[in-house]
Amino acid sequence: MTAERLKELRGQLDDINIELLDLITKRAEIVAEIGKVKAKIGTKRFDPVRESQMLEELVSRNNGPFSDDTIRHLFKQIFKASLDLQKTDQQKELLV
Amino acid sequence: MTAERLKELRGQLDDINIELLDLITKRAEIVAEIGKVKAKIGTKRFDPVRESQMLEELVSRNNGPFSDDTIRHLFKQIFKASLDLQKTDQQKELLV
Repeated sequence: MTAERLKELRGQLDDINIELLDLITKRAEIVAEIGKVKAKIGTKRFDPVRESQMLEELVSRNNGPFSDDTIRHLFKQIFKASLDLQKTDQQKELLV
Repeated sequence: MTAERLKELRGQLDDINIELLDLITKRAEIVAEIGKVKAKIGTKRFDPVRESQMLEELVSRNNGPFSDDTIRHLFKQIFKASLDLQKTDQQKELLV
């Protein structure tokens, strides 16, 4: 019974991992598109005010179990990864 | 047009952020339940082999734009946060 339950819970965890991967990937595509729009307007890609607003919105919706600091930390990593991706793209463009 | 598009894309990003928060929260609940089952069986909560398998499963499904290393890094942070949560719970129990 317990071993079965463990297997079931692990299956649920695997499904959530894949959903997270899909969402993070989709998020990166949107960030890339925002970057293109910003390039047209001529504004900088990294906007610390907007990042701060997104983090505060997330924290305001956080009902635990994670602390607000943990939520900030995890999302900052996700935000940074998407921005770093664009840096690489820009560098590639410069090299062509 | 461009400003409107930016607003639209930002709205999409906000929605994805909330979905990510919900999934990470749901994930933490499942990890907590796995911890309880493991406590019954008497096995350790942190299983490096299982963590490695989950990471490799994610990397095998990763079709970019993130590098495999970035996916490993982001998910290790998510995994660690869930485990840290349980440590705090255990410490609380010891203090009662």
